[in-house]
Amino acid sequence: RLTPCEGDWKDLAEEYVSLQALHKDYTESLDLVEKTRSKFEKALTHQKYRLRCLKSSLKKIDLSGDEDKVRKVDFEKDISRRDAQLQAMEGFLPKKNGFYLSIILGSVNVSILNENGRFKYKEEYEKFKLSVTLIVLCMAVLNLVIQNTVFDLLFMFLLVWYYCTLTIRESILRVNGSRIKGWWRLHHFIATVMSGVLLVWTSSPSYLKFRSQFVYFNIYIGVVQYVQFHYQKGCLYRLKALGDRYSMDITIEGFHSWMWKGLSFLFPLLYLGYFFQLYNAYVLYEMSKEPEAPWPISILSGLFFVVFLGNMFTTSTVIREKMWQ
Amino acid sequence: RLTPCEGDWKDLAEEYVSLQALHKDYTESLDLVEKTRSKFEKALTHQKYRLRCLKSSLKKIDLSGDEDKVRKVDFEKDISRRDAQLQAMEGFLPKKNGFYLSIILGSVNVSILNENGRFKYKEEYEKFKLSVTLIVLCMAVLNLVIQNTVFDLLFMFLLVWYYCTLTIRESILRVNGSRIKGWWRLHHFIATVMSGVLLVWTSSPSYLKFRSQFVYFNIYIGVVQYVQFHYQKGCLYRLKALGDRYSMDITIEGFHSWMWKGLSFLFPLLYLGYFFQLYNAYVLYEMSKEPEAPWPISILSGLFFVVFLGNMFTTSTVIREKMWQ
Ligand SMILES: CC(C)(COP(=O)(O)OP(=O)(O)OC[C@H]1O[C@@H](n2cnc3c(N)ncnc32)[C@H](O)[C@@H]1OP(=O)(O)O)[C@@H](O)C(=O)NCCC(=O)NCCS
Ligand SMILES: CC(C)(COP(=O)(O)OP(=O)(O)OC[C@H]1O[C@@H](n2cnc3c(N)ncnc32)[C@H](O)[C@@H]1OP(=O)(O)O)[C@@H](O)C(=O)NCCC(=O)NCCS
Repeated sequence: RLTPCEGDWKDLAEEYVSLQALHKDYTESLDLVEKTRSKFEKALTHQKYRLRCLKSSLKKIDLSGDEDKVRKVDFEKDISRRDAQLQAMEGFLPKKNGFYLSIILGSVNVSILNENGRFKYKEEYEKFKLSVTLIVLCMAVLNLVIQNTVFDLLFMFLLVWYYCTLTIRESILRVNGSRIKGWWRLHHFIATVMSGVLLVWTSSPSYLKFRSQFVYFNIYIGVVQYVQFHYQKGCLYRLKALGDRYSMDITIEGFHSWMWKGLSFLFPLLYLGYFFQLYNAYVLYEMSKEPEAPWPISILSGLFFVVFLGNMFTTSTVIREKMWQ
Repeated sequence: RLTPCEGDWKDLAEEYVSLQALHKDYTESLDLVEKTRSKFEKALTHQKYRLRCLKSSLKKIDLSGDEDKVRKVDFEKDISRRDAQLQAMEGFLPKKNGFYLSIILGSVNVSILNENGRFKYKEEYEKFKLSVTLIVLCMAVLNLVIQNTVFDLLFMFLLVWYYCTLTIRESILRVNGSRIKGWWRLHHFIATVMSGVLLVWTSSPSYLKFRSQFVYFNIYIGVVQYVQFHYQKGCLYRLKALGDRYSMDITIEGFHSWMWKGLSFLFPLLYLGYFFQLYNAYVLYEMSKEPEAPWPISILSGLFFVVFLGNMFTTSTVIREKMWQ
């Protein structure tokens, strides 16, 4: 009676042999990656080193003849082109985690080594921001109706968790070559701390004086972030289309005109938000002068002011950079 | 004057060509991994499927002869050996992130595909726990001397952050094949929530009645975790030595006798800690019956009780399992 099963088992054993072979192929290719990577990495480091040497010795040379000067300019162009090529190559190597990620995650490797994966990861990040922003917006609107300490606390908890998660994801994006400015990551870090301080303050009676202003502020920020999401998503898809070598959907000029259209809509909203932050800082500062004002008030006032300054400065710098592009 | 530099540049250009070749080798090997992986994965899935079929048809067969029964038992042994082999092979494939990790990190791949890397990651996790435990212990001792709300709040913040980070790292360990029990991960999740609730409660006057008990509890837990660290580290190194095929440093019997020595020291400490948790739950329960007791008290009481039950049950299960090994 066992005979048919034993026949199957024999079949399976044969398949198992070929499975073993596939397994071996696979693990060998894993080893091969390690080997080719370390060779490539060494050669790249060497090339970068020699290029640096060449650049510095070129700088030291004084030229007199006009012809030589022209040659030198050409030469420098060649070198900077090579620099860019090397940088592009470097993008294929896994990067080490920065300080923050190595504390949170440890030294696990979070590099994504192909363009498509990176694009997907960024897309996912934007979607994550959108979903949580919508939840925050709904809760903020509910906060107008429901005035309950526990609900307020849940809201603050959500904010702490959200900003903390953002800093983690943005650090991963950074490892994978995003050019996100340091300030935005720092901003989300400060926002985590602010939400934590607010969490502590919520249960004290003095919070009620600030509460309605804070609720309106959150609603406003939620709306701005919704608009920002649409802009960032548009950038992402258009930049991807630009990067695809065979896609003719979009030109660099088309991208720029689209970008400015988006930005001229977004910037006023952003600046209004920054002034709202300044206003928060001012109101909290006035509150902090009252007798027996608890400590979170002055800390929050200071942090709102720092955030206002940083946002103003960074966004203005971004505008100036984009003007000159 | 530019001539020497131009000579260098020519050299560099030649090196660049070979660098490009190395880059190509490297990216090709990355592609090869993808290809061999998907082939291997498919074959593995198929083999697992057929093995399942075979098992179920074997179960359905009624045997009468003694000889057949013996053959069937042998057969089943073969099959379960094959099962184990397939599972070991599966360990080389990257795993998908679970729900928690995909919310926090997104779908970035955190698999570590070689034994050595996994060992190092686990080692790092244990060291991380040790460092933070020592900081927590110092702060808890300082809490005995300094009675300051802001310092208390910082302590709670540290706890929230620590337990939250633990849940993330443990989820990564899980993806990489650790057999850590679900309860411990859930426990650290509950601990995050508890620290959050404590954070909110800290600034209310009723907290002062519970404060000194909580400080002593933290000191006790810190000491237990220090002992636990030494046990877990010992396990880790000895298991690694057992796993190294050519190492003769340790036998399985040696490991077991060492393990029981460690455990018989650790278990009384753990159970005492669990009863401390029960006592906390009881004291908080009594406090929650007072008029105008704020809501965090009853929630904390319930959570301490849940943690007590879960720890008791899980640790007892672990003892029973280890007895039968
Ligand atoms: C000003 C702004 C619209 C410019 O956006 P942009 O055109 O994408 O800017 P850059 O070209 O400098 O972007 C460089 C990179 O940083 C990212 N980035 C820019 N601002 C970011 C932000 N606030 N958060 C996260 N990522 C951001 C971009 O997506 C891009 O990523 P990539 O390299 O992976 O493609 C954008 O920075 C912004 O919305 N800032 C306002 C944020 C804010 O103030 N929030 C508080 C609300 S009041
Ligand atoms: C009971 C105990 C000592 C058993 O430890 P053990 O011998 O390693 O247990 P197991 O054999 O079941 O371990 C399986 C895996 O889970 C891990 N693990 C076990 N308990 C863990 C815990 N509390 N935290 C994190 N990881 C744990 C082990 O390191 C091992 O990992 P691996 O598969 O990567 O090698 C351990 O679970 C423990 O210390 N628990 C008490 C925790 C506690 O109660 N803390 C509160 C203080 S009162």
